[in-house]
Amino acid sequence: MKAHIKITLKNGVLDPQGKAIQGALGHLGISGVGDVRQGKFIEVELAETDEAKARATVEKMCRELLANMVIENYAFELVR
Amino acid sequence: MKAHIKITLKNGVLDPQGKAIQGALGHLGISGVGDVRQGKFIEVELAETDEAKARATVEKMCRELLANMVIENYAFELVR
Repeated sequence: MKAHIKITLKNGVLDPQGKAIQGALGHLGISGVGDVRQGKFIEVELAETDEAKARATVEKMCRELLANMVIENYAFELVR
Repeated sequence: MKAHIKITLKNGVLDPQGKAIQGALGHLGISGVGDVRQGKFIEVELAETDEAKARATVEKMCRELLANMVIENYAFELVR
């Protein structure tokens, strides 16, 4: 089973990377672009086959290592 | 409309960040973790309301700025 994890900055947290992308898109002549926010996307391969257990493991990973819960949110889906 | 863009490393491209995460998960006592790959997740707000045009704009962004097409793949979905 694979977990597809998205880590995103919470609303209100300054995102200079996103602002840089937004500026660069403007310079490229791509218009109609509003706010840009950059986060992380992490793919993890899991040996676990039970979905509930896999979900618990991924929650633990996110809380203890992958996301900084002060400034980031996480969301994930499991893919067979 | 919002675009949710995932930028991932192509298969076979070395991913030291992913390896570091894999190692750290092991040290945390989380077992049953196989390969880990880290990519980017980018959220872009678009003024465009026509889905086909928005799709074309996001393709252009990905090819010209967001993804390095030599080593990365991209995928995106549009969200209302």
